[in-house]
Amino acid sequence: MEESRNHSRSEQDALGAKDIPAAAYYGIHTARAMDNFPVSGRAVNAHLIHSLVMVKKAAALAHLKLNTYPAEIAQSIVQACDELLAGGYRGQFTVDALQGGAGTSTNMNVNEVIANRANELMGGALGAYSRVHPLDHVNCCQSTNDVYPTALRMAAIGLVRQLSQAFASLQEALQEKEEEFANVLKLGRTELMDALPMTAGQGFGAYAKAIARDRWRIYKVEERLREVNIGATAIGTGLNAPPKYTFYITDLLQDLTGYGLARSEYPMDSTQNMDIFVEVSGLLKAASVNLLKISSDLRLLASGPTGGFGELGLPAVQVGSSIMPGKINPVIAEMTGLVAMRVIANDTAVTMAAAAGQLELNAFMPLIADALLESLEILTNVVRLFEDRCVRGIVIHADRCREWVETSAVLATALVSHIGYEKSAAIAKQAKLEGKTVRQVLLEAQILPEAQIDKILSLY
Amino acid sequence: MEESRNHSRSEQDALGAKDIPAAAYYGIHTARAMDNFPVSGRAVNAHLIHSLVMVKKAAALAHLKLNTYPAEIAQSIVQACDELLAGGYRGQFTVDALQGGAGTSTNMNVNEVIANRANELMGGALGAYSRVHPLDHVNCCQSTNDVYPTALRMAAIGLVRQLSQAFASLQEALQEKEEEFANVLKLGRTELMDALPMTAGQGFGAYAKAIARDRWRIYKVEERLREVNIGATAIGTGLNAPPKYTFYITDLLQDLTGYGLARSEYPMDSTQNMDIFVEVSGLLKAASVNLLKISSDLRLLASGPTGGFGELGLPAVQVGSSIMPGKINPVIAEMTGLVAMRVIANDTAVTMAAAAGQLELNAFMPLIADALLESLEILTNVVRLFEDRCVRGIVIHADRCREWVETSAVLATALVSHIGYEKSAAIAKQAKLEGKTVRQVLLEAQILPEAQIDKILSLY
Amino acid sequence: MEESRNHSRSEQDALGAKDIPAAAYYGIHTARAMDNFPVSGRAVNAHLIHSLVMVKKAAALAHLKLNTYPAEIAQSIVQACDELLAGGYRGQFTVDALQGGAGTSTNMNVNEVIANRANELMGGALGAYSRVHPLDHVNCCQSTNDVYPTALRMAAIGLVRQLSQAFASLQEALQEKEEEFANVLKLGRTELMDALPMTAGQGFGAYAKAIARDRWRIYKVEERLREVNIGATAIGTGLNAPPKYTFYITDLLQDLTGYGLARSEYPMDSTQNMDIFVEVSGLLKAASVNLLKISSDLRLLASGPTGGFGELGLPAVQVGSSIMPGKINPVIAEMTGLVAMRVIANDTAVTMAAAAGQLELNAFMPLIADALLESLEILTNVVRLFEDRCVRGIVIHADRCREWVETSAVLATALVSHIGYEKSAAIAKQAKLEGKTVRQVLLEAQILPEAQIDKILSLY
Amino acid sequence: MEESRNHSRSEQDALGAKDIPAAAYYGIHTARAMDNFPVSGRAVNAHLIHSLVMVKKAAALAHLKLNTYPAEIAQSIVQACDELLAGGYRGQFTVDALQGGAGTSTNMNVNEVIANRANELMGGALGAYSRVHPLDHVNCCQSTNDVYPTALRMAAIGLVRQLSQAFASLQEALQEKEEEFANVLKLGRTELMDALPMTAGQGFGAYAKAIARDRWRIYKVEERLREVNIGATAIGTGLNAPPKYTFYITDLLQDLTGYGLARSEYPMDSTQNMDIFVEVSGLLKAASVNLLKISSDLRLLASGPTGGFGELGLPAVQVGSSIMPGKINPVIAEMTGLVAMRVIANDTAVTMAAAAGQLELNAFMPLIADALLESLEILTNVVRLFEDRCVRGIVIHADRCREWVETSAVLATALVSHIGYEKSAAIAKQAKLEGKTVRQVLLEAQILPEAQIDKILSLY
Repeated sequence: MEESRNHSRSEQDALGAKDIPAAAYYGIHTARAMDNFPVSGRAVNAHLIHSLVMVKKAAALAHLKLNTYPAEIAQSIVQACDELLAGGYRGQFTVDALQGGAGTSTNMNVNEVIANRANELMGGALGAYSRVHPLDHVNCCQSTNDVYPTALRMAAIGLVRQLSQAFASLQEALQEKEEEFANVLKLGRTELMDALPMTAGQGFGAYAKAIARDRWRIYKVEERLREVNIGATAIGTGLNAPPKYTFYITDLLQDLTGYGLARSEYPMDSTQNMDIFVEVSGLLKAASVNLLKISSDLRLLASGPTGGFGELGLPAVQVGSSIMPGKINPVIAEMTGLVAMRVIANDTAVTMAAAAGQLELNAFMPLIADALLESLEILTNVVRLFEDRCVRGIVIHADRCREWVETSAVLATALVSHIGYEKSAAIAKQAKLEGKTVRQVLLEAQILPEAQIDKILSLY
Repeated sequence: MEESRNHSRSEQDALGAKDIPAAAYYGIHTARAMDNFPVSGRAVNAHLIHSLVMVKKAAALAHLKLNTYPAEIAQSIVQACDELLAGGYRGQFTVDALQGGAGTSTNMNVNEVIANRANELMGGALGAYSRVHPLDHVNCCQSTNDVYPTALRMAAIGLVRQLSQAFASLQEALQEKEEEFANVLKLGRTELMDALPMTAGQGFGAYAKAIARDRWRIYKVEERLREVNIGATAIGTGLNAPPKYTFYITDLLQDLTGYGLARSEYPMDSTQNMDIFVEVSGLLKAASVNLLKISSDLRLLASGPTGGFGELGLPAVQVGSSIMPGKINPVIAEMTGLVAMRVIANDTAVTMAAAAGQLELNAFMPLIADALLESLEILTNVVRLFEDRCVRGIVIHADRCREWVETSAVLATALVSHIGYEKSAAIAKQAKLEGKTVRQVLLEAQILPEAQIDKILSLY
Repeated sequence: MEESRNHSRSEQDALGAKDIPAAAYYGIHTARAMDNFPVSGRAVNAHLIHSLVMVKKAAALAHLKLNTYPAEIAQSIVQACDELLAGGYRGQFTVDALQGGAGTSTNMNVNEVIANRANELMGGALGAYSRVHPLDHVNCCQSTNDVYPTALRMAAIGLVRQLSQAFASLQEALQEKEEEFANVLKLGRTELMDALPMTAGQGFGAYAKAIARDRWRIYKVEERLREVNIGATAIGTGLNAPPKYTFYITDLLQDLTGYGLARSEYPMDSTQNMDIFVEVSGLLKAASVNLLKISSDLRLLASGPTGGFGELGLPAVQVGSSIMPGKINPVIAEMTGLVAMRVIANDTAVTMAAAAGQLELNAFMPLIADALLESLEILTNVVRLFEDRCVRGIVIHADRCREWVETSAVLATALVSHIGYEKSAAIAKQAKLEGKTVRQVLLEAQILPEAQIDKILSLY
Repeated sequence: MEESRNHSRSEQDALGAKDIPAAAYYGIHTARAMDNFPVSGRAVNAHLIHSLVMVKKAAALAHLKLNTYPAEIAQSIVQACDELLAGGYRGQFTVDALQGGAGTSTNMNVNEVIANRANELMGGALGAYSRVHPLDHVNCCQSTNDVYPTALRMAAIGLVRQLSQAFASLQEALQEKEEEFANVLKLGRTELMDALPMTAGQGFGAYAKAIARDRWRIYKVEERLREVNIGATAIGTGLNAPPKYTFYITDLLQDLTGYGLARSEYPMDSTQNMDIFVEVSGLLKAASVNLLKISSDLRLLASGPTGGFGELGLPAVQVGSSIMPGKINPVIAEMTGLVAMRVIANDTAVTMAAAAGQLELNAFMPLIADALLESLEILTNVVRLFEDRCVRGIVIHADRCREWVETSAVLATALVSHIGYEKSAAIAKQAKLEGKTVRQVLLEAQILPEAQIDKILSLY
C-alpha cells in the first residue's frame, strides 16, 4: 500500500489515456473532473453521496432479480455499497462541490469507487474493471439524469425530517418559557416605541406559534419530495431501462430508506424541472425569517444590560470580548441570525440554478444540491444549538420589566374607550411633559372617579 | 366645486393645525403622510384599499349589532364603504406605497375618507367630523396593527384565487399542445447538446406538469392565509376590543368576502410575524422559476428561424424591429421571463421586510404588501397573456425536428444495451468523423445483422 | 376633440390593420404593445422617455446637418421634441413598464408620438405619416438597440447627479450633529451590549463618513455611464448609420444634456453587455446598506422613550398610532429603511435581467431600466426626506446618556493596561454582582491608589 | 504525543474550568467556541487566518520597538507567527466558519495558538500561558473589532489582486479569439432571432471588452480596501492603544504585506460600517453577470452539434454522459455559470450581514468574511479554468456560420436606406414565404439594378 502510493496506473477513455494514483478507488472520469473543477475545495455533500450509493445498491439488487448480469457481480456491488454506506472510502469522493455537467462527475465518482471496490472483492485489480464495470454494471439502466435527482430528493427527505424534529423541540422550549414567564408584566413595543402592556410569556408564545408553522411546513413538504424519476434515464423517456427494473428499483429504494418514495408520474418533468427544490428552499427561507426575527428580539431584549432594554438575560456560553473584561455577548443568537442569512443567500443560489434549466435537463443541479443540502444541515444544527444554548437558559429581569411598565405613558391607551382618543392623547402628552404617571395626571384632572381609574389601569 | 379647489380648510391634531384642500375627503393624518412620504409616486395597492374598506364596513356592522354608537352613524359608515367598494373616491387614497409607520397612514387615509363621506351623508361638512369621527367611530375597537394584516390577507386570498385559475388555464393550453404535437419526433437535448429522441408533445407535457404543481401550491396556500388577527388591536392582546365585537366582525368578514376566514389562534403571533407572506412569495418564486424555464425554452426552440433551433414558431403579436424589416421577436415569452424576474426581486423585498420585524410589530408591512400584491397581480396578468398570446398559437416545424433527429449521432445510445457503452461510443465517434449516420456505420462495420439494427434504431 | 374621442382611425403594419383612437398621438406599434403587455399598469419611467426624446431631437438635428431628408421635416421633429421635453403629451406614453421586446415598444411609442405631432405641425392628420414617418424619419439611422441603452445611460446620469447631491447634503447634516453632540458622553455598544464610552457626536461622525463614501461612489460612477452606443444600430456594427451621423449625434447629445458623453469604444459591447447597470445598482445597494444601518441605529437609540434606549429624540412628523394616544413613531427612519430594502430588491431584478442577455442583445433591458431608475429616484427622495424630516431635527437626551455611562460596569476596560485582563474581569464581575460602580470596587479592593484610579477612569 | 492524545489538560476562564485535549495549541476560548458553533463543518477561510497572524506578528514587532513587554516574549510571538505563516499548525484553527460573536472566537483562536506555540518556544507547557498570554501579550492593545476588519481587508486585497490578474489573462485569451475569427462571417442575433451579419471575431471582442471592465473595476477597488482600523480597539476610540503603537503597526503591516495600507481616517467608521465589502461584492456580482452571459453564449453557440446553433466547438475535457456514448458536454462553461450564481448568492449574504450592523459594531462580520473571501477565491479559480480549459480551445465551424448567413432573410435590412422600411419588410416577407433568398426576390422584383443590389448586399 505504502509503495503503491508512489505509483500510478493508467486508465483510458474516449479522450485518451490518463495516469491515476495506483491506490485510488476512483477512476478516469473522476480524475478528469478533479482537473476540470478545482474550484472551491469543498467536497460534494456527504448526504448526497450516501443517497447515490443507496441508489446503486438498489439497482444492483434489481438486476439480481432480473438476472441482467451474473449474480456474483450484483452481490459484489451490493457488498461494496454496504461498505460505503457504513462510512468507508469517503476520501475517494474527490470531485469539487461546484462542478459543471449536471452531476455526471459525482455519479461517475460513485460508479467508479463502487466498481473498483466490487472488482477488488472479486479478486480484480484497481482500475481493471475486468469483472465489474462502472457503466456497464454499476450504472446499468441508469443515467446521471435520473440517478442524481432521485438521490437529491432522498437526501433532502432525510434532512427535512431532522429539521422538522429540531423545530418541534425548539417550539417546546419556547412554550416552556411562555409558561415560565406567564406572570411577568412588561411593556409591549410597536415600531420600537413603548406600547401596551403584556406578559413576557405572551411574547414567547408568539415565537412558539411561528416556529410551529415552520415545523409543520417543513414536515408537510416531504410529500412533494417523494416522487422520484429513477428509471427515467437520460431525458425521461426511460430508454434502456426496462419497466420491470424501474418497478423493482423504486420498491427497493422504499425498503432501503423507509421513505414513501413513489415513481414520478411524468418522469420527463421530474428530470428537467427543479421547482420542488425552490419550494423547499422557500420554506427554509420563511423559517429563517422567523429565526432572524426571534433571535434579533432576544438580542434586543437582552441588550445593555445597563444601557439597553435589559429585560432578558441570555445564557453566558463564552467570554465576550478580547478587550473588555466581564462582557458577555449574545453569540448563540447572533449565530442563529447569521445562519438564517446564509440560508436566505443559499435560496438565491437555488432559485437562480433552478431557473437556468434548459430543455430536457438542468445543468446546474450540483449548485441546487450543494446549497439546499447545506441549508438543511446548518438550519438543523443551528435550531438545536439555539434551543439548547440560548432559549432554554433565558432568565427574565422582572424588576426592570415592571419598572418600564409603571413609568411609561402608554397607559393612556386604556382610557380611549372611556374618554375618547383626543382627551387620552392630551393626558399622555401632559404626563410626559410633567414627568408624572398617567394615573397622577388623571387624578389631578378629576375627569374620572378614582375607583374607575383604578379599575381601568389595572386591566393589564 | 371649482371654487372649493382654490380654498382650503384647516384641521388639527396633536402636532398642531394644517391646511388641507377644502374638497379633500382625506384629512390631516393623510395630509401629513403625503408630506412625509413623497417617495415613489405609486399609490397603495387598490386591492389592499378595497379590503381595508371591507374591514371598516364589517366593523360598522358589528357596532350596529352591539349598539356601540348610534345606529345612524354605523349606517352612514356602511353606506360610505359601499360607495368606496363600488369604486368611488379612489383618487382620495393619496399616501405613497412606500411609507413608514407599519401602514398606519394607509389605515388613517381609509378612516378619514370614510368618516368624511359618512359625515357628509349625515349632513356634515368635510373636515368637521362632527357626526362621524375617523378614530372614535370608523376605527372604533381597531388598530392599524390588526386591521392592516387582516386586510392584507384578504387581498392576498382574492389574488391567489385568480392566479390559481390562471395557472389552471395555462396548464390546459400546454396539455392541448402535448396532444397536438404527440406524433412529432424531435431531438431531446441535455446540457444543450443533442441527446435522445422524444416527441414534441412530451416536452409540453413536462411543462404542463410543472404548471400543475404551481396551480396546486398556489391553491393550497389560501388555507394558511385565512387566519386573521382582527380584534387583536395594537399588540395582539385585544385591548379595547370586546370579545363579542371580535366574534361578530370575523363572521361579517366571512360573509362579505365569501372566504373561509377564521380568527387567529394566537393574535399576538399574527400581529408580529410575517412568515406566511414569505411562504406565499416563495411559492410565487417557484412558479416564476417554472415560467422562466418554460419561456426560455420556447424562445430557444423558436430561435432562428434560420440560424437557430427553429423547431417552433411563436405567434407574431407585433412587428419586431425598428430597423430590421420582417423580424418577429418572441416578445410575449420575453415579457413572461421578465415578469418572473420581477417577482423573484419582489421576493427579496418581502423576505427582508418580514425579517425586519421587531418585538410586537413589523414596521415594514407596507413593503410586504406592495411587493407581494404586485407579484400576485403581475403574475396573474402574465400567465394569462402567456397562454393567450403565446402558448395557444405555437406551431411546430415538424420537418426541421425530424431532420435534426435523423442527422444526429445520438442514436448510438440505443446500441448501448446491445453492444456496450464503449463500442457504442466508438460508433458515434466514427459517424461524426466520417459525416455518416449511425445506421450507415453500423451496417458497414457488420457488428449486428441489418434486421436487428432496424429494430433497435426504430425504438423511438 | 370631444367628437374625435368617439371615433377611431385605422393603421396598418406587416401584421394587418388595427383600430386606434382617432385622437391618439401614438400609433399602431404602441397600440399592439398595449394589447401585448397589460401587466403592471405602471408607465415607463418618465426620465427614460425624456432621454429618448432628447435622442430623437439630436438625431433630427444631425440629419438636418447631413441633409438626410428635407429640412422642414427635421425642423418639425425638433419642434415636436421640444414640446415633449417641455412636458407635453405625457399621456401618450402608454406602454407598460414591464414589457417584452428589449425596449422596442417604448422606442416605437416615442417615434410614433413625435411623428404624429410633427406631421400635425406640418398640416398632416394623425395617423397619416404622410410627411413625417416614425421609422423612416424619426428613427432614421437608429435602432432600439442603440437608442435605448443610450437614453438609459443619459437618464441614469441625470439621476446619479441628483442622488450624489442628496448624499452630500445628508453628510453635512450628520456632520452638524457630530459637532452639536460633541460633548455628550454616552455608552458605545458592541453586539448591543454595553461597551466603552464615546461621545454622541462620534456616532454621527461615523455615519457621516459612511455617507461620504456613498456620495463619492455615486459621483464617480458617472464616468462609466458616459459611453453611449448611439450609432451602433441593431447589433453594434453601425449598419445604416453613416459615421458622420454618429459623430454629429454624439456631439449634439453632449450639447443638449451638458453631460460628457462619449461614443462607445466598442459599440457591439455596449449594445449587449449590461454590467455597468449592475455596477451602479451595486453601489446603490451599498448605499442602502448604510441607510439601513443608520436608520436602524436611530430607531434603536430613540426607542422607548421610557422602556428602551431613549438616548435620542427623533422629530415628530405625524401622530403615531390610531389606538395609542400620544405615541410618536420613527416613521421617517422606517421609510428610509423600507426604501433601502426596495432598492436591494431592485438590485436582484437588475442582476437577473443583466445576466439574461443573449448574444448581441439583452431582451430584458426594460426591467433593468424600470428597476434601476426607480432605485435612483426613490433613493434620492428618501435621502432628502431623511435629512430634512429626521436627521436635522434629532435631539439628544444627554441625561440618559450620562446615566448609562455612569452605572455601567464597562469602565473596567480602562483598567486592562494597568492590572491585566483577568484582574479587570474580576473587578467587573464583582461590580455587577454587588451592584456597585467599578470605582467603588476598586477603591475597596485597594489595588491602586485613588489618584491613579481617578486618572484612569476619567480618560473618556 | 500518542499518549497525550488520550489525556487532556484543564483551562479556566471567567465561566469556569474546561477540559482541552492536552496536545491542542488552541485554548479554552476556542474550545468553548467549538462547542457553541458546530454548524457547517467548514473552517474559517485560510486567507483570513493568514492575515490575522500577520497582524499579530506586526503587533509583536511594534511592541518590541515600544518595549511594552519583554523582548523575548515579542520574539517568541514573532517566531510562532512565522511558523504559522509558513503553513504550520493549520489544523489548530478549529472554529466553524459560521460563528456568532463578530469574529471574537477566530481572533481568540489565533491568539491562543500563537501564545501556546510561543510559550512552548520559551520552554513553557501547552495551556500554561506562564510566559506568553493570549490576551495580555498576543492581543495586547488590540480588540477583535480592529484586528478582524483589518485582517479581512488585507485578505481581500490579496485575493482581489489575483482575480484582477485572472481577468487580465482571460481578456487576452478572448482578444486572441477576436483576431483568430476576424474573418468568419456569421449571423448576429437579437432576442435570439436572426439579425444582421457580423464576424465571429467581433463577438469575442465584445466579450473581451466586458471582461476588461471587470479587470479594471476589481483592480481599482483595492484603493478602497486599504484603509485599516488597526489601533481602533473595541469601538473605534483607540482606548488602550497608544498612538505610537498604532503608527508602528500600520507601517509594519505595510512592510509585511507590500500593500499600501493606510490608517483609517475615522476608525469608528471603519469598525462599524461594512459598505466597502458590499461594494466589492457588488463588483464581483457585475463580473459574475458577465461570466454568466459569456458562458451561456458559448454554450448556446456550441449547442447541437447537429440540432442547435453549432457555430462553435468547445474543447472536450471529459466524457459527457454516463448513458449516451460520444456525447461531449460544455462542462467548463457550465461550471463558470454555476460559480457566477454562487457568487451572486454570496452577495445576498454579504448585503444582509452588512445591513445588520448595529451601533458600534457589526456582529455578522464572520458571514461577510466567509462569503466574500469564498467569492474571490472561486471566481479566481473559475476565471482561470474558463480561460485554460474552454476559451483557449474554442474552434469555429465556419461553414455552418456562413450557411446561416446566406440562407437568412435578414439581408433585407441592408435595403432600408435604399427603398425604405416598409418595402424592405415586404421583400423579407416574400423571401421567407417563397423560400428564396433576398437577392433572388430583389432581382425578380426589378426594384433596383443588379449592380446596386450586389453592392448593397456585399456590405457585410
